[in-house]
Amino acid sequence: MVDRLAKGWFSEVSSEMWPGQAMSLAYEEILEDVQSDFQHVQILKTKTYGNALCLDGVIQITERDEFSYQEMMVHVPMFSHPNPEHVLIIGGGDGGVLREVLKHPALKSVTQCEIDGTVIELCKKHLPSIAQSFHHPKANVIVGDGFEYMKQHQQEFDVIITDSSDPIGPASSLFEKEYYSLVRSALRDGGIMCAQGECIWLHLDLIKSMQEFSRTLYPVVDYGYLTIPTYPSGQIGFILCSKNSETNFRVPLRRASSEDMRNMHLRYYNPDIHSASFVLPQFARLALEEAEASTTSASA
Amino acid sequence: MVDRLAKGWFSEVSSEMWPGQAMSLAYEEILEDVQSDFQHVQILKTKTYGNALCLDGVIQITERDEFSYQEMMVHVPMFSHPNPEHVLIIGGGDGGVLREVLKHPALKSVTQCEIDGTVIELCKKHLPSIAQSFHHPKANVIVGDGFEYMKQHQQEFDVIITDSSDPIGPASSLFEKEYYSLVRSALRDGGIMCAQGECIWLHLDLIKSMQEFSRTLYPVVDYGYLTIPTYPSGQIGFILCSKNSETNFRVPLRRASSEDMRNMHLRYYNPDIHSASFVLPQFARLALEEAEASTTSASA
Repeated sequence: MVDRLAKGWFSEVSSEMWPGQAMSLAYEEILEDVQSDFQHVQILKTKTYGNALCLDGVIQITERDEFSYQEMMVHVPMFSHPNPEHVLIIGGGDGGVLREVLKHPALKSVTQCEIDGTVIELCKKHLPSIAQSFHHPKANVIVGDGFEYMKQHQQEFDVIITDSSDPIGPASSLFEKEYYSLVRSALRDGGIMCAQGECIWLHLDLIKSMQEFSRTLYPVVDYGYLTIPTYPSGQIGFILCSKNSETNFRVPLRRASSEDMRNMHLRYYNPDIHSASFVLPQFARLALEEAEASTTSASA
Repeated sequence: MVDRLAKGWFSEVSSEMWPGQAMSLAYEEILEDVQSDFQHVQILKTKTYGNALCLDGVIQITERDEFSYQEMMVHVPMFSHPNPEHVLIIGGGDGGVLREVLKHPALKSVTQCEIDGTVIELCKKHLPSIAQSFHHPKANVIVGDGFEYMKQHQQEFDVIITDSSDPIGPASSLFEKEYYSLVRSALRDGGIMCAQGECIWLHLDLIKSMQEFSRTLYPVVDYGYLTIPTYPSGQIGFILCSKNSETNFRVPLRRASSEDMRNMHLRYYNPDIHSASFVLPQFARLALEEAEASTTSASA
């Protein structure tokens, strides 16, 4: 095994999630290295990727490339909804998803449930360009369990975004059917959810099974992806579900103009990459079509 | 620096090309480790990516994910040409591009110029699923310098594909204007070239400058990308140029049917990802549009 902090390199090793491969970042300094109530939290000053947040040895975000993940996780669902006024974020302790949600003029309120307050505090300190919006007047930040919060807040949200770590550790339950079902009940009619959806190159079976159970809960389910150098294999997907059977995630319902994109300081998202993000390589398309066919025939 | 072969991991470090980051693959055995006349050639038996070819310390291809690169480098230009009969490959010593070119029924001949015969021989031995086509009756394989070959073979090819390593070492001249100009003169009227085009996350300035000089040589120039876990940052681009001003690379001129895709055993390419591969994140789109505007105004 690669020594994770050997010789000034942080190596991301997981024999369960991505056996046999490891992304490494050179670092100058370990800014934080603490065990919170939930996980091992590290913040590194890297040599070429700015400051980086790592949880349980896995890179969550770096200042250099975070925008692609945050923008796609937020703007694809938000531009797919006719009027997203009330938004809930589960996880997302670095604050980047919150920053992006707040760029939408229709927004009236955004609630964030992050279970680990240590992550929020350390990101405020070391990742200020990301964790900049926790005190925004429209933001309601709760350090607590998203499951419990949603049980108490049924049919309240237009969009729910799950910005979680991988399905090992504190976030594992966020990849299960019970969670997707609870999200559905916390959404208003016509509501949309977006969740971190792992990588087609690494976790196609997990993605297929998530698609299968999502289709039993929502009339519209889709899967897209974004590229990001510091995630395993250089990309990550997102699963989108809508309670509105008319939703077509592949074409933005509201199309951002060039002026919108400038005003929102968008660096990754544009309406064309919104659509292109759903176009999968043939091997993944065939695998997910198979999953769709088996769900359809099972429910027929 | 990460020790490249420490503790059973091969780490891809380049302080020039991707400073501060490194992809690592766990390996079971070093199958070959030789200095050829041109470069350091290694073949590793990895734990989870099959056998891998490395040149001068850089991963060129692994059995697990090679198909995305080979298919996109070949089928995007081939399906953009009305009738690709005569094809030239520069580089591509592993044989994967050759394998894909031979899938096209219109093909009458394919010539490959690879400067390093050692790469061909070692790939035949250890990467047989990739290096399977060197003895195909339509293939003419030359161990020699592509520059010299093209100087002797002017206006002969419908499609020329440059499958090179990075612009450091033996392939550096393949990223320069003189090379693109020579390719143009080796193409027939209406001919198309496709060349390895590096990564928008790492080499945007190089890509901009290549686009700029290409536009002084060809009426149509475009840039797309594919995802591949074992290339730096998980993706790589390709530069496409056409001598036919009517070419629109973004829509396949000939659209592969589902039956075509099955017969050709395509695992990454399909007509939709052909088009989607040109849709860039906003930061890269703006940078390349700037480059285009400056070329246009300079030539106006």
